[in-house]
Amino acid sequence: MARPPVLTPQAIDFPKWYQEVVAKAELADNGPVRGTMVIRPYGYAIWEHLQAALDARIKACGAANAYFPLFIPEAYLNKEAEHVEGFSPELAVVTHGGGQKLAEPVVVRPTSETIINSYFAKWIQSHRDLPLLINQWANVVRWELRPRLFLRTTEFLWQEGHTAHATEEDARSYAVRILREVYEDVMVNLLGVPVRVGRKTDRERFAGATTSWTCEGTMRDGKALQMATSHELGQNFAKAFGTSFLSETGGHEHVWQTSWGASTRLLGALIMAHGDDAGLRLPPALAPVQIVVVVVRDDDGAGDRAAALAAELKAAGHRVELDDRVATPFGRRAVDWELKGVPVRVEVGPRDLAEGVVTLVERHLGTKTASPLAEVAARAAEALDRAQVTLLQEATTLRDDRTTAVSTVEEAVEATLSGFARVAWDDLGLAGEARLAESGVSVRCLQRPDGELAHSADEPDLVAFVARAY
Amino acid sequence: MARPPVLTPQAIDFPKWYQEVVAKAELADNGPVRGTMVIRPYGYAIWEHLQAALDARIKACGAANAYFPLFIPEAYLNKEAEHVEGFSPELAVVTHGGGQKLAEPVVVRPTSETIINSYFAKWIQSHRDLPLLINQWANVVRWELRPRLFLRTTEFLWQEGHTAHATEEDARSYAVRILREVYEDVMVNLLGVPVRVGRKTDRERFAGATTSWTCEGTMRDGKALQMATSHELGQNFAKAFGTSFLSETGGHEHVWQTSWGASTRLLGALIMAHGDDAGLRLPPALAPVQIVVVVVRDDDGAGDRAAALAAELKAAGHRVELDDRVATPFGRRAVDWELKGVPVRVEVGPRDLAEGVVTLVERHLGTKTASPLAEVAARAAEALDRAQVTLLQEATTLRDDRTTAVSTVEEAVEATLSGFARVAWDDLGLAGEARLAESGVSVRCLQRPDGELAHSADEPDLVAFVARAY
Repeated sequence: MARPPVLTPQAIDFPKWYQEVVAKAELADNGPVRGTMVIRPYGYAIWEHLQAALDARIKACGAANAYFPLFIPEAYLNKEAEHVEGFSPELAVVTHGGGQKLAEPVVVRPTSETIINSYFAKWIQSHRDLPLLINQWANVVRWELRPRLFLRTTEFLWQEGHTAHATEEDARSYAVRILREVYEDVMVNLLGVPVRVGRKTDRERFAGATTSWTCEGTMRDGKALQMATSHELGQNFAKAFGTSFLSETGGHEHVWQTSWGASTRLLGALIMAHGDDAGLRLPPALAPVQIVVVVVRDDDGAGDRAAALAAELKAAGHRVELDDRVATPFGRRAVDWELKGVPVRVEVGPRDLAEGVVTLVERHLGTKTASPLAEVAARAAEALDRAQVTLLQEATTLRDDRTTAVSTVEEAVEATLSGFARVAWDDLGLAGEARLAESGVSVRCLQRPDGELAHSADEPDLVAFVARAY
Repeated sequence: MARPPVLTPQAIDFPKWYQEVVAKAELADNGPVRGTMVIRPYGYAIWEHLQAALDARIKACGAANAYFPLFIPEAYLNKEAEHVEGFSPELAVVTHGGGQKLAEPVVVRPTSETIINSYFAKWIQSHRDLPLLINQWANVVRWELRPRLFLRTTEFLWQEGHTAHATEEDARSYAVRILREVYEDVMVNLLGVPVRVGRKTDRERFAGATTSWTCEGTMRDGKALQMATSHELGQNFAKAFGTSFLSETGGHEHVWQTSWGASTRLLGALIMAHGDDAGLRLPPALAPVQIVVVVVRDDDGAGDRAAALAAELKAAGHRVELDDRVATPFGRRAVDWELKGVPVRVEVGPRDLAEGVVTLVERHLGTKTASPLAEVAARAAEALDRAQVTLLQEATTLRDDRTTAVSTVEEAVEATLSGFARVAWDDLGLAGEARLAESGVSVRCLQRPDGELAHSADEPDLVAFVARAY
């Protein structure tokens, strides 16, 4: 008799599969206040690897970390008209502090452009102070009516970069540098997600930006996930906050700015870009446990042999866990490691050992092979390399298979039932974009025909990638 | 004509000195909402080194990081009577979210015992789930009426550990392990602050704990700073939240718990334990810049020589900055590096170079010595080692010099005008402690006569360390 599946199959109900895998792999729980989340140790460990990778690249781009307050005076948000219009429906407001009603209510930061600019205005005097390149790791709050763990939560964790430059060109090239050297690099080479990098349409632009750049991933149900954005803010906030500098030629000029962010939403991308009906499939670069050594039964020295093997693999520089919980049935433990997406599983049991071998299971391929004991370390290392490459390849194939070239709005809507539509922006235009929106479909990004970034949304021959999005 | 001092001298006005050094070394700024703070890049970089050191030790003690929500339903706090009484005067309350008045107001976490216990109660079923060892890096909010940057701020950053154990002994030994292997180790060996480790009196206990352990530092004005605490919570929260487990013998028992934290307050300790009238003096282990190579004047190849030297020192594994801003007067730059407390300064100028030497300045000693070029790397490394050791020695001497053995409350109050008083707890007792409090003096910790930890505040012959505290 076949066992019932551990998870609702993706093909039956993708959102339900997602919810179940988040819970059963112990990634996160819902918080008691609507829309908030508890990130459990296994989920948080993935986030720590992501943080480290992003942080190193951000620093390599010259930005320094700092920290600005959680609480922002309401008046600050009102200074930039488009910004406050975009964020005010989502704000959480503190009205009481220390047992007293506050004279002026404060908002919990939904993002920090306003408060950071109020300091940039003080810190920046001369062109010698530029560029000013700041990043912060923080929690932010945006009230969510239809929350979903990692994807849309009332509170989430992220990094937000904020920079000021002497010229528009410098700001633009920095925004694009972050997009490419930080975000695209981490997404492709660590997350294994082949993102589409492009420009947002005006409709999808960040509230207060002049240009928004994005990395758009394709999930296994064909939907789009915006994985990180990098914005040019022009002089909008500089004018609102009076952030100006004495230029080399002696005049006072407003600075040109950027902001850019990536959040715990990336965990949602990781789950939905690679997971299958058995659970997560983690790329080794981000897996908290890269290799698990499982004692099948502790007979004939299997336990000792497994412990020695785990120590050997750890010494080789891998993140290794030894599972010697033999009181729990082996099958249940194997299912659990599949759920958790550990890339390589080494099963050590007395029957295999009698023949001088162990069983090596590759999660991403689903293969089980017998490996002579002396070759385990080398084969496990190869399997990890293979996993990182294969997951990216599979995701790339999926992205391409799920993209349909179309030429009308109707065809685009139809195509987005299973994936992305690729359509000439000249054919679509603002009117077409508005009609797509009526069907819950959006333009995810614009690219030049060769895939490069467009300097302006008005360039001829741009390609629009269109999808339903998380 | 002598130049006016850069800072108000410590002996004239220590609080003013503190305020000025925080501002001039660009460590932090006041936030716009009363009591909040902006941690500037230089201050934040110190915090990142501290975080990394604490995080590595916390993980070595077996705890895993996780993240719990910022927002806590008001009702949760009310579940533990002593806890809510301690924290309710300091709470920030969110009453509106997403444009609506909330049905139940939520508080911004002042600490997370309550919300974490509500999950521990779900996650813990059996003795096999224990010990459960969790840590989180987060911001917390406690409304401050008399804020001071780093020392007492409405919002601060910290780590808070929360653990659950099967027995009281296991919880106690873990609380003490964290105190010793995480906090004391970091404070003595990285911060260079010789903390007194001991037990809090009942009056000073954390709201909701059965025992609080503390690390108490001595600042250069003789006042005490509580630098980290580790608490045994007994079964108080377990009973309030129903956190119980099936024991090995088959019964249902409440877990025994600990919680422990260290915060951005440690930056205040770093400033006040080592700083002098010229500014900060940073221990190399935590200094964002360990060696600064300063071009005095860019003549006769001094600039190139300095750049080569900086590269050589960086390659040797130090954190190095090259200061080639020759448009700014040399004296001003030297004063600035003193202010910022960079442990070693290498001054490269054409006059010295003509003689084949550079000038090596040791910030902690104030010494300037000529060093042949070929010896700079070795001498700078020695100077860094010396700085780490010397700062701890100086702080130890200060602590001991500023401690007076006394036998009455009156003598204790008198002694605390310049430092700590050491007094027999049997002589002081609860009544003496209450009288001290009338003079703004508190018992910082209790120790056994040999300096070891007391199992109970009722042990005979305990020693009380008494001081005025930040």
